[in-house]
Amino acid sequence: IGSNSAETDSQTEWTDVQKKIIPWKNSTPSLDLEMVFQDRAAKLGKSNSRLIVVASLIDKPTNLGGLCRTSEIFGASALVVGSLHYTQDKQFQHLSVSAEQWLPLVEVKPSQLVDYLQQKKMEGYTIIGVEQTAKSFDLTEYCFPEKSLLLLGNEHEGIPANLIHHLDVCVEIPQQGIIRSLNVHVSGALLIWEYTRQQVIKQKQQK
Amino acid sequence: IGSNSAETDSQTEWTDVQKKIIPWKNSTPSLDLEMVFQDRAAKLGKSNSRLIVVASLIDKPTNLGGLCRTSEIFGASALVVGSLHYTQDKQFQHLSVSAEQWLPLVEVKPSQLVDYLQQKKMEGYTIIGVEQTAKSFDLTEYCFPEKSLLLLGNEHEGIPANLIHHLDVCVEIPQQGIIRSLNVHVSGALLIWEYTRQQVIKQKQQK
Repeated sequence: IGSNSAETDSQTEWTDVQKKIIPWKNSTPSLDLEMVFQDRAAKLGKSNSRLIVVASLIDKPTNLGGLCRTSEIFGASALVVGSLHYTQDKQFQHLSVSAEQWLPLVEVKPSQLVDYLQQKKMEGYTIIGVEQTAKSFDLTEYCFPEKSLLLLGNEHEGIPANLIHHLDVCVEIPQQGIIRSLNVHVSGALLIWEYTRQQVIKQKQQK
Repeated sequence: IGSNSAETDSQTEWTDVQKKIIPWKNSTPSLDLEMVFQDRAAKLGKSNSRLIVVASLIDKPTNLGGLCRTSEIFGASALVVGSLHYTQDKQFQHLSVSAEQWLPLVEVKPSQLVDYLQQKKMEGYTIIGVEQTAKSFDLTEYCFPEKSLLLLGNEHEGIPANLIHHLDVCVEIPQQGIIRSLNVHVSGALLIWEYTRQQVIKQKQQK
């Protein structure tokens, strides 16, 4: 109920928000996102969500564009991509429907990921790999911390072994049927949704 | 825990399943799907899910192909499309990764939808529109009946007014951010996931 009224508030301020928010792009991972998050959240009339979606391992512009749209819609703090050049790709733009203008994008090359993940861990983020492993938590049973960082795997190779060691936890989506692997944009969307759903429920319980 | 062991069982039977399951396609909506559902569920070693995903209003082959893959993975009973010709489209096939060979597909033209929905209602299905309306339930608060039929809207026009009257309920995905509308494949995937998540939790509670 509370979140609905907040949504109405943010709707009335849309025009205002569109004029004020400036795309934030940065080629190094060291810049502190906190101010950007708080600024954006305040303008959207939302509580600060602390979800970072890391898509540096993803190759396909369609998947990145789709993730950009979905991440923006659920108010993620930032989308991390392997190269900002992807945003110039026509397929990216077709799928992102200009979400990259509102969502903070950060460039972290795959070779920089270990350092980036360690830094975020020091900042209090839980590093969550979206991957099927013997030790993965089932998504129906996993409780997301407020400061969550989702690392999505490559379309073909998933998350490489050297990065698995730097994760705090792996989460997998229980899958039925015969085709076994969801598209990476869909996998990411389901975890972003599940994080959001849990946050919404927590916020309602606090009221 | 129970569902995990079921999953392992179905994995060991895969080769077997792949040989036995025959694609099921039908150009009229009147055929009873129950037998096909039960047969497929039994072969997958799963309890029978009763989720029908109706995508007859969707135009883009990429969205249909993606929905086919996602529906198959979560063990939906069937995907309803406006025309089976879509399955011949290269973009459909690229996104579906051959899921149409395992998932029952039903052809129901948009002009047949009113009749189809009424028939399914008589069979005990709750007809759920995925649409933002003044009376929509928030997805974080909606409890899916076991026999659920999801009607997805057109990419541009959503669900037309004449069909809204035939729905039992509308469910909307609470969206933050500035870009307001999720891609229809993603919207569908989130409702399919939420249905599945609730079913998994119910099954665990029964054990």
